[in-house]
Amino acid sequence: MTGGFRFNVTRTDGQARTGVIATARGEIRTPAFMPVGTAATVKAMHPEAVKALGADIVLANTYHLMLRPGAERVAELGGLHRFMNWPWPILTDSGGFQVMSLAKLRKLDEDGVTFQSHIDGARHRLTPERAMEIQALLGSDIQMQFDECVRLPCEEDEARRAMLLSLRWAERSRAAFTPAPGRALFGIVQGGASPALRIESATALTGMDFHGYALGGLAVGEPQEIMLAMIETALPLLPAGKPRYLMGVGAPDDLLESVRRGIDMFDCVMPTRAGRHGLAYTRRGRLNLRNARHAGDPAPVDPLSASAAARTYSRAYLHHLVKSGEILGMMLLTEINLAYYEDLMEAARRAIAAGDYADFCARTKEDWALGEGEGQPKPS
Amino acid sequence: MTGGFRFNVTRTDGQARTGVIATARGEIRTPAFMPVGTAATVKAMHPEAVKALGADIVLANTYHLMLRPGAERVAELGGLHRFMNWPWPILTDSGGFQVMSLAKLRKLDEDGVTFQSHIDGARHRLTPERAMEIQALLGSDIQMQFDECVRLPCEEDEARRAMLLSLRWAERSRAAFTPAPGRALFGIVQGGASPALRIESATALTGMDFHGYALGGLAVGEPQEIMLAMIETALPLLPAGKPRYLMGVGAPDDLLESVRRGIDMFDCVMPTRAGRHGLAYTRRGRLNLRNARHAGDPAPVDPLSASAAARTYSRAYLHHLVKSGEILGMMLLTEINLAYYEDLMEAARRAIAAGDYADFCARTKEDWALGEGEGQPKPS
Repeated sequence: MTGGFRFNVTRTDGQARTGVIATARGEIRTPAFMPVGTAATVKAMHPEAVKALGADIVLANTYHLMLRPGAERVAELGGLHRFMNWPWPILTDSGGFQVMSLAKLRKLDEDGVTFQSHIDGARHRLTPERAMEIQALLGSDIQMQFDECVRLPCEEDEARRAMLLSLRWAERSRAAFTPAPGRALFGIVQGGASPALRIESATALTGMDFHGYALGGLAVGEPQEIMLAMIETALPLLPAGKPRYLMGVGAPDDLLESVRRGIDMFDCVMPTRAGRHGLAYTRRGRLNLRNARHAGDPAPVDPLSASAAARTYSRAYLHHLVKSGEILGMMLLTEINLAYYEDLMEAARRAIAAGDYADFCARTKEDWALGEGEGQPKPS
Repeated sequence: MTGGFRFNVTRTDGQARTGVIATARGEIRTPAFMPVGTAATVKAMHPEAVKALGADIVLANTYHLMLRPGAERVAELGGLHRFMNWPWPILTDSGGFQVMSLAKLRKLDEDGVTFQSHIDGARHRLTPERAMEIQALLGSDIQMQFDECVRLPCEEDEARRAMLLSLRWAERSRAAFTPAPGRALFGIVQGGASPALRIESATALTGMDFHGYALGGLAVGEPQEIMLAMIETALPLLPAGKPRYLMGVGAPDDLLESVRRGIDMFDCVMPTRAGRHGLAYTRRGRLNLRNARHAGDPAPVDPLSASAAARTYSRAYLHHLVKSGEILGMMLLTEINLAYYEDLMEAARRAIAAGDYADFCARTKEDWALGEGEGQPKPS
């Protein structure tokens, strides 16, 4: 590993910004969308195909990997990059979110959380120190602090308690983090839907001097206005020279509006999960290939897409694959969706660099509004 | 479509032979293994990847495609080649085998068979004439006669009745077939496990002058000796200048022994189905990646394979994917298995051309016998 972890903002356009994060394993162009590789695989995709679509970094889940195959096992096999044949940057979450959403019989205390695996019921424990150790064993390029994530809506007292615990865990994560060239640790701003709590969290975390800052506990069911309000509240308090990562977001419109407000990084299962359920993201909005009206349609999903799958296969064929439960349908639609997300981020980067971001957003939303039923523009 | 359907045997070695079948959509090097693309997709594979592994032709199933999406629908969309993005040769079966093995409430009469779809219970009918019509609508390069396939073991009377019916249906298939440049129709030798019936069937079919001849109703549970005996009985009666296709076969050893006896073409779901169930075919025999002993094994499946998947990913990673039910595990193991089958056929072709086929078979079987547990030879 060579080189340090650096973030260089090259252009801004209003609050939106574009730049490059340098890591030991390569550069990440921002704004960046990170495909989710939960169990050491971006589902239904060859890793080289994920890279070819424009992804500079993927996310992997500490919770899933600690349960199976185990962090020590991955380390023995040469680390997560070698294990999953992805030599480029990897961000790992800390496991906190999945412990709350997936694990059974979880018991939280000041020191950490004890829980049962959703796979086999085995007991496990995560603390800030263990979360850091696991992420180091995996060989993550960007580690996340261990935190507690509450569901929304949430009582203010409960959101405050979890936010304050997450701050104490942030300090312990910081202390347990093993620095290495090009390796980063991000703090996570919590505080539910409360501006006051978000301000308190962001201020305290900034004082701890992380390599980057995330907003956690959003896109968990709340209206988009609340999410955007929390971004507007927290971001001015975070250092402008550090990356800002909105965790678990989101739909294409969420990405555009969050980039507009200064977010640099995203991850979300939406494009990959939707692809496994017959949905395609396109310039003309979202297509449901399961719908019978596609059964005889010879048109491709999008003749102007960077994805060969979107240009090559007819909607009728994709409809057939989806209806037949064929794996190739999931493969092609996952590719189409990741290509759409990565292309959207590339277009956003170009628009910011050109000082054209607001117009770009307006044009993009106009195209979505034309709708899937209008057909696709023909290539000239 | 240009060019006629031709078969040119370029070399023989004992009864084994190697050659080239020319079709309107490209050449098929023989002996040839045809990956099975049941529902217009070789499961879990991009079509261009199937081609890259060395497959010159794939098989598609009339039964499945007539039920979903329907032959007329495929024709409206430009034919099966365009539909599934496979511009190279396609062989279609006639539906007879699947009607017997998959359909519900089938009722056979002299004219054909009425059955219910296993998908939605809808009533359908297949006759020799309709089977030819469907295969022409699909745009198949090699069509198969409509036949009745009995299960083994089977009473001689029942096998005789089905064989004679299949001969009458062969004549009707021949009459209903629409000749086109480079398009072929194959007859199917039936007769169960009875040498006398196989001789009667092969003799009668030869008199009808098909473009090629298949052996049907084998590899349906009988011992390998019976299958090989039926090949030895039937093949001397078939014209040497026409392709000989053993339907639905088989394991790698079945392929070697059938090629030794003069078979030119195979299809089988074994490599693709096994790949979806955690099994890998290798030069050292079959590996079960689900087995816990692979959990920490950094070795690739086969460092000398033509398949990048077999060289790149550790057995530990494949074990993890299989245990986790990840689609990528099915994708990689399907690729590994198809690569193994296609490489085995390529090696057989080279060995026959070199007059070395018997030694090649002996060496291949010695390698299998070394076993998966012995590890793989290291690349030099």
